[in-house]
Amino acid sequence: MEEDKKEHITFKINEELVEQVQSLINADNKAKVFEIMDEYHYADIAEILEEISFEQAIYVIKLLDSEKTSDILSELDEDIREKILDNLSAKEIAKEVVELDTDDAADILAELPEDKQQKVIEKIKDEELKADIQELLAYDEHSAGGLMAKELVKVNENWNVTQCVGEMRQQAANVTRVHSIYVVDKDDRLIGRLSLKDLLMAPDHYQISSVYIPKVDSVHVDDDAEEVAKLMQKYDLEAIPVIDDDKILKGRITIDDIVDVIKEEAEKDYQLAAGITQDVESSDSILELTRARLPWLFLGLIGGVGAALIMGDFEAMLKDHAVLFFFTPLIAAMAGNVGVQSSAIIVQGLANDDVKGSVNTRLFKEMLLAALNGVILAMFLLLFIWAWEKNLYTALAISVSLIAVIIVAGIIGTFVPLFLDKRGIDPAIATGPFITTSNDIFGILIYFWIAKIILQI
Amino acid sequence: MEEDKKEHITFKINEELVEQVQSLINADNKAKVFEIMDEYHYADIAEILEEISFEQAIYVIKLLDSEKTSDILSELDEDIREKILDNLSAKEIAKEVVELDTDDAADILAELPEDKQQKVIEKIKDEELKADIQELLAYDEHSAGGLMAKELVKVNENWNVTQCVGEMRQQAANVTRVHSIYVVDKDDRLIGRLSLKDLLMAPDHYQISSVYIPKVDSVHVDDDAEEVAKLMQKYDLEAIPVIDDDKILKGRITIDDIVDVIKEEAEKDYQLAAGITQDVESSDSILELTRARLPWLFLGLIGGVGAALIMGDFEAMLKDHAVLFFFTPLIAAMAGNVGVQSSAIIVQGLANDDVKGSVNTRLFKEMLLAALNGVILAMFLLLFIWAWEKNLYTALAISVSLIAVIIVAGIIGTFVPLFLDKRGIDPAIATGPFITTSNDIFGILIYFWIAKIILQI
Repeated sequence: MEEDKKEHITFKINEELVEQVQSLINADNKAKVFEIMDEYHYADIAEILEEISFEQAIYVIKLLDSEKTSDILSELDEDIREKILDNLSAKEIAKEVVELDTDDAADILAELPEDKQQKVIEKIKDEELKADIQELLAYDEHSAGGLMAKELVKVNENWNVTQCVGEMRQQAANVTRVHSIYVVDKDDRLIGRLSLKDLLMAPDHYQISSVYIPKVDSVHVDDDAEEVAKLMQKYDLEAIPVIDDDKILKGRITIDDIVDVIKEEAEKDYQLAAGITQDVESSDSILELTRARLPWLFLGLIGGVGAALIMGDFEAMLKDHAVLFFFTPLIAAMAGNVGVQSSAIIVQGLANDDVKGSVNTRLFKEMLLAALNGVILAMFLLLFIWAWEKNLYTALAISVSLIAVIIVAGIIGTFVPLFLDKRGIDPAIATGPFITTSNDIFGILIYFWIAKIILQI
Repeated sequence: MEEDKKEHITFKINEELVEQVQSLINADNKAKVFEIMDEYHYADIAEILEEISFEQAIYVIKLLDSEKTSDILSELDEDIREKILDNLSAKEIAKEVVELDTDDAADILAELPEDKQQKVIEKIKDEELKADIQELLAYDEHSAGGLMAKELVKVNENWNVTQCVGEMRQQAANVTRVHSIYVVDKDDRLIGRLSLKDLLMAPDHYQISSVYIPKVDSVHVDDDAEEVAKLMQKYDLEAIPVIDDDKILKGRITIDDIVDVIKEEAEKDYQLAAGITQDVESSDSILELTRARLPWLFLGLIGGVGAALIMGDFEAMLKDHAVLFFFTPLIAAMAGNVGVQSSAIIVQGLANDDVKGSVNTRLFKEMLLAALNGVILAMFLLLFIWAWEKNLYTALAISVSLIAVIIVAGIIGTFVPLFLDKRGIDPAIATGPFITTSNDIFGILIYFWIAKIILQI
């Protein structure tokens, strides 16, 4: 048994296991299903439930006790959890919720429709827990208050070590991970901390006020979740206390919540760069995926129509210089690629707080960089077109235009995210089809302008 | 003073501070520079050093004591650290390195040239530390061994609680964060753990073998760093012990190292999606940035040339159907965007281990999705071209081709990352200009084929 449990760490849910669970559920073999589920970690069970049918998942949830199912629910994909909670009564949900840490409990409750949420809260008997959850529900989801849990270990500066250890033992029973012991004054104001290591080494008769560390990092309940994440990363913190305007200790944020914030942020940026507006997974419905993807494609369509209109304007050049038109996809592609490269570097720099120096310096550097890349690429293109079309002028016109297009694309790619950031808009939206589309249009316009000038000399 | 220290948490390094530090250094005011540096966290000082000149940074490093500078060095940007270490003797580096946790020490040593690395190691007097660092240097950087630190708290199953606490106090003095207490047998094999919470609540006279939890997650020294990161996230672990083939406890990985792995991985994927080959920052030199960006642009150039060649082949259609050529940037853009969207969803799914089901089902779903998007977009395009060119046939030819192009792009975008992943290649490379370029060429080819067929009826 111990060996079994130990093995879960390298175990991946495989199809055989899922099939085995399914046939046992179909055969209504409660004992065996229970036995299998008992062997696995709740995160693994959540994965299994995501693979089997909804009715089968409900079967498993009703079979297991709430200590385990609460954690499973917490791990489940939001879509599936919503469907399962729909099938549970307010009383049943309350039974699950009280087993969880307050932050996870509040997260689940926040997903429920208003009226069901109220009903579930009414069913929570522990008045303190009820108040805690209601408090957490009131904070903005993306604030420190929305991230924190009420579970923490705090001691009063006026206790002695023995008294403190006694109180802590009680408190620790409710806290999954102790991390730091926070020290408060008589009014519950955060005044310092007591490290576990120090506690292990402190003689029993000492007074807390004489052994605590009066230096403690904290964030405010209204601080932005992403800022808290950056801060905890920068200062390598595994937990941080959260205080209100009066410095009253309200809760604690732990690093595992921060890991989720970082992952979500990275995924959002990645999806924006790829032209996907909202959080979707490959398993989502075709309709959801369309809703996330179509707006960006529509933007691309408008860009393409714009490019076509521009080319229509230059139709007169078609007779003598048809080859110019053959290179429009190349020009559009290069403008798009350079723009995305430039903006991605800025977006990442902004996310990591290391975009320094003035906008002008940055634009100048990007211009130099784009010019360097442009000249190298243009030389290759010049040789190719010259060899293909046997016309140096055309080759020159296209190559010189390419350099100009690349420089402009680089500048737009650098400027737009900086501009958006200054206006308080997430600069990551500048990396996707947005920049590609505008660069397509600008690129083709610049291309024909310059080519026209060179070829008419 | 306490208040000062407390404030650092919301403090951002500003230009005034940097200028103040610079002028104090120029005035050689050692006392005042020291006083300022003493007030800030090492992560803040690292940020300041990244802002000032290299000579000024060296000045600060030589001024502060190694307990603080070692942490500062560890936080610095790799480029700047390299330059600073170049200016320190082997003995000076050794003095810094011994102050760090073994994993950070090994990371810094790994960056040094082979001969300097050897010289630094020779200067480390503590034989145990020397052996630990040498062991860590031998592991692959991207393996669990490369991530772990030797610092941990372990107790022998044969000790009693009192004996254990005594030993632990000693061990804890060298460990920044205790997390878990690992239990080993007489041969140093990992057999379980003792939670800090349990320890706080355990009576003193108990034997460890009777109170320890014989269930402990662990990873193998050769396990891939990314897999360890996924695992620690999935099971919400804040630390995990690392064992070798004989189950000997070799070290411990903590969540803060995992946060770095997750961030690096996300940044790499993001940069690949944006067409940037290697880890660059906006502050890097133009040459470094060119090296990271030019290869992808070159790929785009080849794609554009390919598209031009295809269009050259269809030159005969130019006379009667010039408008077809005006929409090639649109076709290329749509093919590229759809391809990137599809592949990004697959890449993200693969990274999160939630791409399930057969490849065929997935391709079929993507085909349906692309067809739905394609039809919607094509309808708009049809109306526009019809109104613009007053030619229903041309409008129909372009619109139908667009649908075909979108479907093919979606299939390529889905298939390529799955294929690469099967072959053990990082599927993230499929999201960038790679897929855009191939889709540009395929898209334009399909477009002209279909348009030709429709228009020649």
